[in-house]
Amino acid sequence: MHIFETINKVQLAGKKWLKVMVALCILTFPFGTKLMAQQNNEMVRLAKIKVDASQLKKYNAALKEQMTTAVRVEPGVLTYYAVADKRDLTSITILEIYADTAAYKSHIETVHFKKYKETVKDMVKSLELIDVTLIGSAKKPDM
Amino acid sequence: MHIFETINKVQLAGKKWLKVMVALCILTFPFGTKLMAQQNNEMVRLAKIKVDASQLKKYNAALKEQMTTAVRVEPGVLTYYAVADKRDLTSITILEIYADTAAYKSHIETVHFKKYKETVKDMVKSLELIDVTLIGSAKKPDM
Repeated sequence: MHIFETINKVQLAGKKWLKVMVALCILTFPFGTKLMAQQNNEMVRLAKIKVDASQLKKYNAALKEQMTTAVRVEPGVLTYYAVADKRDLTSITILEIYADTAAYKSHIETVHFKKYKETVKDMVKSLELIDVTLIGSAKKPDM
Repeated sequence: MHIFETINKVQLAGKKWLKVMVALCILTFPFGTKLMAQQNNEMVRLAKIKVDASQLKKYNAALKEQMTTAVRVEPGVLTYYAVADKRDLTSITILEIYADTAAYKSHIETVHFKKYKETVKDMVKSLELIDVTLIGSAKKPDM
């Protein structure tokens, strides 16, 4: 527990203002934000996908399996968010974050990604890949 | 430390298969994914914004201040990701997640949001708000 070691060191040092600062850090931590500046090499992308309406349920299941497997087993696959337009649930946007382009290149050669591509090849009507740069993000610590 | 209390209880119970399962959970935890199913009431949105190129830097600064302040001080503002198209950095997409529509309605009445809107009113050339539903997300635990 680094935080208690820190407190202990501060107590040993006997500096009151340091104690107050450490206490403030601890007290405000649960209410703080998790801020991320984009790492230099991160690869961020938006994928815009139109899905055949009659196969939407199967497509969403395949997509979720692909996302969860990739994040679980590939060190360089960091984040996915997949959302569907409420006015047209077949219009899907995916935010993808990889550690770097090498991680992405490795990702598309994996068995699970190839399985996903094979599964959805007749479900996807169009696919647009947009390379983006992360301006910024902010999240509650538990999100 | 719940995890060590758990191990201790398991040791007391003396059941080997339970010990093995707990050990496996601990060992695989750092490699696991953080999965989120959309909470029933969460409000998820994509905002698509075109910014005046000559004011892009100022716009991005105002956007980042708005995002970080909202997530820090408003309990119902959960997540923001803001990205810019690499081919045209004035084309910005923001993924926004609020706890519910009440949290969003409260958000747009805050001082910091109104300040942002006032600051950027002559920087934003167009704004499209798209209500979306979260199909799924997957993230490394530290993301």
